[in-house]
Amino acid sequence: MPDFATPTLGEPRFPSPLKLSNVPGDFIADYTRPDARILYDPTGATPGVYFELAGPRERIYFEGEGTTAGIVTCGGLCPGMNNVIRGLVRRLWYSYSVRRIYGFRYGFLGLAPRSPEPPMLLDPGVIADIHLSGGTILGSSRGPQGAEEMVDTLQRMKVNMLFVIGGDGSMRGTHAIYEEVARRGAKIAIVGVPKTIDNDVLFIEKTFGYETAVAIAADAIKAAHVEAVGSPKGVGLVQLMGRSSGFIAASAALASREANLILVPEVPFDLEGERGVMGYLRWRLASRGHALVVVAEGAGQEHLPKSDEHDASGNVKLADIGQFLRERLVREFKPEGASIKYIDPSYIVRAAPANASDSIFCGQLAEEAVHAAMAGKTGVVIGYWAGRFTYVPLTAVITGRKVISPDSAFWRSVIEATGQPPLLNN
Amino acid sequence: MPDFATPTLGEPRFPSPLKLSNVPGDFIADYTRPDARILYDPTGATPGVYFELAGPRERIYFEGEGTTAGIVTCGGLCPGMNNVIRGLVRRLWYSYSVRRIYGFRYGFLGLAPRSPEPPMLLDPGVIADIHLSGGTILGSSRGPQGAEEMVDTLQRMKVNMLFVIGGDGSMRGTHAIYEEVARRGAKIAIVGVPKTIDNDVLFIEKTFGYETAVAIAADAIKAAHVEAVGSPKGVGLVQLMGRSSGFIAASAALASREANLILVPEVPFDLEGERGVMGYLRWRLASRGHALVVVAEGAGQEHLPKSDEHDASGNVKLADIGQFLRERLVREFKPEGASIKYIDPSYIVRAAPANASDSIFCGQLAEEAVHAAMAGKTGVVIGYWAGRFTYVPLTAVITGRKVISPDSAFWRSVIEATGQPPLLNN
Amino acid sequence: MPDFATPTLGEPRFPSPLKLSNVPGDFIADYTRPDARILYDPTGATPGVYFELAGPRERIYFEGEGTTAGIVTCGGLCPGMNNVIRGLVRRLWYSYSVRRIYGFRYGFLGLAPRSPEPPMLLDPGVIADIHLSGGTILGSSRGPQGAEEMVDTLQRMKVNMLFVIGGDGSMRGTHAIYEEVARRGAKIAIVGVPKTIDNDVLFIEKTFGYETAVAIAADAIKAAHVEAVGSPKGVGLVQLMGRSSGFIAASAALASREANLILVPEVPFDLEGERGVMGYLRWRLASRGHALVVVAEGAGQEHLPKSDEHDASGNVKLADIGQFLRERLVREFKPEGASIKYIDPSYIVRAAPANASDSIFCGQLAEEAVHAAMAGKTGVVIGYWAGRFTYVPLTAVITGRKVISPDSAFWRSVIEATGQPPLLNN
Amino acid sequence: MPDFATPTLGEPRFPSPLKLSNVPGDFIADYTRPDARILYDPTGATPGVYFELAGPRERIYFEGEGTTAGIVTCGGLCPGMNNVIRGLVRRLWYSYSVRRIYGFRYGFLGLAPRSPEPPMLLDPGVIADIHLSGGTILGSSRGPQGAEEMVDTLQRMKVNMLFVIGGDGSMRGTHAIYEEVARRGAKIAIVGVPKTIDNDVLFIEKTFGYETAVAIAADAIKAAHVEAVGSPKGVGLVQLMGRSSGFIAASAALASREANLILVPEVPFDLEGERGVMGYLRWRLASRGHALVVVAEGAGQEHLPKSDEHDASGNVKLADIGQFLRERLVREFKPEGASIKYIDPSYIVRAAPANASDSIFCGQLAEEAVHAAMAGKTGVVIGYWAGRFTYVPLTAVITGRKVISPDSAFWRSVIEATGQPPLLNN
Repeated sequence: MPDFATPTLGEPRFPSPLKLSNVPGDFIADYTRPDARILYDPTGATPGVYFELAGPRERIYFEGEGTTAGIVTCGGLCPGMNNVIRGLVRRLWYSYSVRRIYGFRYGFLGLAPRSPEPPMLLDPGVIADIHLSGGTILGSSRGPQGAEEMVDTLQRMKVNMLFVIGGDGSMRGTHAIYEEVARRGAKIAIVGVPKTIDNDVLFIEKTFGYETAVAIAADAIKAAHVEAVGSPKGVGLVQLMGRSSGFIAASAALASREANLILVPEVPFDLEGERGVMGYLRWRLASRGHALVVVAEGAGQEHLPKSDEHDASGNVKLADIGQFLRERLVREFKPEGASIKYIDPSYIVRAAPANASDSIFCGQLAEEAVHAAMAGKTGVVIGYWAGRFTYVPLTAVITGRKVISPDSAFWRSVIEATGQPPLLNN
Repeated sequence: MPDFATPTLGEPRFPSPLKLSNVPGDFIADYTRPDARILYDPTGATPGVYFELAGPRERIYFEGEGTTAGIVTCGGLCPGMNNVIRGLVRRLWYSYSVRRIYGFRYGFLGLAPRSPEPPMLLDPGVIADIHLSGGTILGSSRGPQGAEEMVDTLQRMKVNMLFVIGGDGSMRGTHAIYEEVARRGAKIAIVGVPKTIDNDVLFIEKTFGYETAVAIAADAIKAAHVEAVGSPKGVGLVQLMGRSSGFIAASAALASREANLILVPEVPFDLEGERGVMGYLRWRLASRGHALVVVAEGAGQEHLPKSDEHDASGNVKLADIGQFLRERLVREFKPEGASIKYIDPSYIVRAAPANASDSIFCGQLAEEAVHAAMAGKTGVVIGYWAGRFTYVPLTAVITGRKVISPDSAFWRSVIEATGQPPLLNN
Repeated sequence: MPDFATPTLGEPRFPSPLKLSNVPGDFIADYTRPDARILYDPTGATPGVYFELAGPRERIYFEGEGTTAGIVTCGGLCPGMNNVIRGLVRRLWYSYSVRRIYGFRYGFLGLAPRSPEPPMLLDPGVIADIHLSGGTILGSSRGPQGAEEMVDTLQRMKVNMLFVIGGDGSMRGTHAIYEEVARRGAKIAIVGVPKTIDNDVLFIEKTFGYETAVAIAADAIKAAHVEAVGSPKGVGLVQLMGRSSGFIAASAALASREANLILVPEVPFDLEGERGVMGYLRWRLASRGHALVVVAEGAGQEHLPKSDEHDASGNVKLADIGQFLRERLVREFKPEGASIKYIDPSYIVRAAPANASDSIFCGQLAEEAVHAAMAGKTGVVIGYWAGRFTYVPLTAVITGRKVISPDSAFWRSVIEATGQPPLLNN
Repeated sequence: MPDFATPTLGEPRFPSPLKLSNVPGDFIADYTRPDARILYDPTGATPGVYFELAGPRERIYFEGEGTTAGIVTCGGLCPGMNNVIRGLVRRLWYSYSVRRIYGFRYGFLGLAPRSPEPPMLLDPGVIADIHLSGGTILGSSRGPQGAEEMVDTLQRMKVNMLFVIGGDGSMRGTHAIYEEVARRGAKIAIVGVPKTIDNDVLFIEKTFGYETAVAIAADAIKAAHVEAVGSPKGVGLVQLMGRSSGFIAASAALASREANLILVPEVPFDLEGERGVMGYLRWRLASRGHALVVVAEGAGQEHLPKSDEHDASGNVKLADIGQFLRERLVREFKPEGASIKYIDPSYIVRAAPANASDSIFCGQLAEEAVHAAMAGKTGVVIGYWAGRFTYVPLTAVITGRKVISPDSAFWRSVIEATGQPPLLNN
């Protein structure tokens, strides 16, 4: 178990400008007490391990007026990035009177000397309507930059707090910034808002954009279902995001309730043979006349030639399971008159604006990120656990990835909903 | 603290027909162990109080083939009712081979001798596409019926398990049925799926339909915002559901991020005076030119004449705060050239089909309800706590209502998002 | 038949800066020839009556660079107003290099000396994302202002062309401006873009926002349908816009295909008696168990007490047919156990952003309005007839209102779709 | 100019059961007079050429009670197919009391002896909610079947009228059926409802599903725009339907107002060179930092290797311009740091349910098709011209395809909206 203690820049120095209360029952919302925490394991089976609860502290580290904040968005697009930017700016501006807020352009590239564009100055007017569009007004990019030169930029621009909205790779980069800042003894709060459309951040129940992504992906599954039932022996095949974790594929299938087979990276499967994928689909086509398969992009990599290439984020390039399956299905069933319809809605999912639920969530994440930085928390990301917002140290987050446990109630729901065999092996 | 132990019909008698596993790490989803549980208080501050975790048991009480199930939907409409019906029928049919499933018509009325229509026979064909529409194919009605005559009907039709999809009042009715069944020593499992668009069920984090309702309500708030900024001195006023609990109003306001004032039943307010509602809105109109108010139907009842009337569900009829505020706003600001636009989207919210997130949730609730009844659990509702599905005894659920705590982080988010004074009193 | 000749400011003086062609078959889009026209009656039964076709002329009256344009939005909100504003600004700016574009605030009020706010300066940056929101960034107001003082403002600000986005009443006001401009011999082009959610502009097939309004209204009808079938003897009642013309009510009913009765201003009906509204609904409830009524706000005024009041636009205040019918239905059917659900989605419809179809249409209307003004056309509105954009003189437009002909194929479709008696009279 | 006279089975023999009127001004909808017609050219420049107007005739050819109807859906999916099926069944059933309605399965295949499934019997219960889903409950297939064996089936099943919902290829097949029926002197009315997502049917202004397709396609363009502006040197590329006609690509671009370049089959372009596609995009990337290209699948075929293959519908297989352009863009701009995001939303567009506007249109098309068949019209499709429903002989329809005229106002709007050069040639 990693250490979940939250690093700080130092003792809080100023009273909070928020007009909250400490009195229960006075109808006024309360500050979060410094010792507020939540069990890591709500079943009670792992006593003594806690996350610190997020929230506004009564005493804080930075005074809003002289403070400079920076915001940067990294990695692939994800619904809600603009909502988080908007929330950060509004809370910095209205709750703490921070008036100098830089938006660095195109990810960590915007913190490097070779940044294609200078940072934008953000205020409530600039960001007023950005939540109506998907994507990020700051732009994004993949891949790391040198921690030293990024911290040079922060120091040169006198940035006191940096908010990084980014995924797995970016959290590693953020950790490097945090360590370089610490090495220099600089008083810059480094706070992450985890952004991963795959919902695969360790120690965090749900990341923003995920619910929206599931909703849009479920629409793609519905389209594939309509196509599948619309032809004699129709086979729909939908590839969804999910490099290491099949949450989107599984949840979208639960939402649409039409898929007959879900393939995720966490559960191995035989492709051939009567009890493998092909055998199951053959049975399904014979008995029901159509079939619908949803596959996460990281599933079944063992059936594909390994790649040595890496993408800009430094991840091994996945072999294309969607195209592979499509061709395999065509070879198997087209001679018998089947038609195979393949949908990969990737960019449509990524570029969608946040739905209502994610809008709420993004606003709250931004709020907590601002409270964290103002209170001098650093080297943390804003987490969500058992329904509460938490601080999770970057050192803990980067130790791995959250995956679906095949033993879990969630995976059991998926198996029950699709009717697929619990395990596709011969 | 009420007793959270789950009543049962007796010792399980049969092996489950589900092909699940008990072996960790075998890639096959697992049965839920009989002693699985979760802490009532995940902060760890109230040790020793637990909810039983829902899930399929390895040994069960009913054998699917001879079993008769009944389903009834009660009270006002709520997004997702058809999804729950569909989920119940599919899991009964496909997972446990139950082949006799009655859908009682128009709420408890359909269990009474004076039922306007006989029950429908439900099977996977009948319910195939019902989730595409809002409402309930069974129809609903408000108000109780005699427990004795309802249990007479269940016994006459040899119903072994009754699923009640209903709200606060209906859970009281369900409890009466449960007690009458127990009094007779009948072996009928009574399982509730809590349905309340207000999200106000005690000991349950989230009820189905709530997220959809928030999304539709947020659209109404956006419309009111557009109207408010579209006129000189425009005031938008939106009334939303929420008799005792302002969750929808508060969450919809968080989702739209446009409201300047949220009034909920949990937080009292002064109407008049400089630091009351009118004073705040006067300041807002003077400084920003427009204002947007969201009010839950149960808010501010202290400002209205008391009613002695009751509605069909037996609740005291609320005075109409929406109309009252509208008239007060017209009187106050119209002479100065303001225009007041009033929106009450009630039925549009209630009649909406479930969104993706609620579709998943409804399917899982139905799954757990079926597993519960098959395992012989009775007198329970399916709950949701710290992200897991639970059993909550009806005896505990009916002891009160869940409300927003004004001391909570949630209410704090609302206050921060609207910028309204923490308390509107002089 | 009114005169359809288009007034102009004078002979065109400059070559168009657009790089269009006059050569057929060269793959380059063409200028519209000055004599291009379309028959008023495409059945050919009224030969010799034509509308002038809209489009960019090869020679124009104003040179973009020195020109000042004004835009004003009047009356109630309607989906697409922001799209039209955006289209006007973009075409003025990019096609004709007009660089001084004023957005007058809050309707004609913004042209009066007592304007609450000065005009906004509009450019492509300001209007970049406004089409994502409903309403109008300029604000709107109802009611006229003095033509003389408005033309004083135009002359003081050296406005060369004024675009008025407004409805019936505003077109009368626009005509007054046009006449005052003509009286002074000023060279100011006055061009209207007809905005009426009721789709009731004479000599114009379709106005912007109407399709979006129908779509949102159809959703409200679906909600009422879900509510009606959800209760024993459920009656849904939806009131929609339509003061003199029932187009929205009729089209929304055609779109949803669920309504059993449509009441519009154009077709009288008996309320009482076996063959009146109550008798038909009594029959419907007895035979089918539920009923759904859609009423346009101007329908059945003969059954209501007359009002002497006028609204801000100068229209006689309609008596409230929706509330009247609701009460009548409650009195008639509630004693028999019916429940009546009433929906008035008015502001939700008006404040919606334009759908795809209206986005196209608004962009084209704006384009044509700019081409018209640049070519020196004045005293015209941009029309749409037999699928082409036209010029319709204000003098013709203000002679009346377009209504549904009960003899028409359109009304026949409505009657067939609802199954209501062709005429509800005893 | 082809002959537009409508073939008929013979003199009408029965009075219509519809209770319509012939009296103007009686508030009752009217029958359509047998001589009702509309000019082919509403500009009046081609006098004497008319389409017959569709509508219910006072005297009809078939008596509903003994009549057997058949419905078949052919070709690729298109939004609204289920709406048309539903409309046909409801009008046959409710307006004319036709009680035997066959739904042939999987296109013309269902009329062939080797049909994989027997026809469905359709009634209002079966089709009640099918319009809530996209696709077709009958299934579809591509490719022709022998006219003789299809007419054998019709005669064996005593079908009096066949409704074919199908596209270009299917209309050729329908024509063959019509001719074979005529050759045999059989009294079977053959009526087409043109279904082409490309909107490319000759002599018909608008086909069903097109507006929905444009709306969904516009969402894909918005996603590509968000992706393009989200990366440094981002290039979005969207491929849309449109084999011979670029209507969807052009209209979707007009709806989204974000595209910088539209490529359609009707307008040739240079790919290379400073004034070709690559040169224009290079300029755009240099000056604005991102670019968005929309290409119809049939565009630019001259730049691609010719194919000898044909698809199941008998069309020459198009070379894949989308993939070709994507690779060309990657080769050109990726070395400079650009990222190219490619979206092909084809199946998502095709499988969508009809929007409100198409729901109205589909219902009216179905209505007119039923009136046509009952009146003994045959060898016709239901057209739409200058805002009215018409009959267009199959013989005329199959003479070619409707395309965008580059000289037209529509194409001019596209050029103005994108800002692309009027012609991309060196």
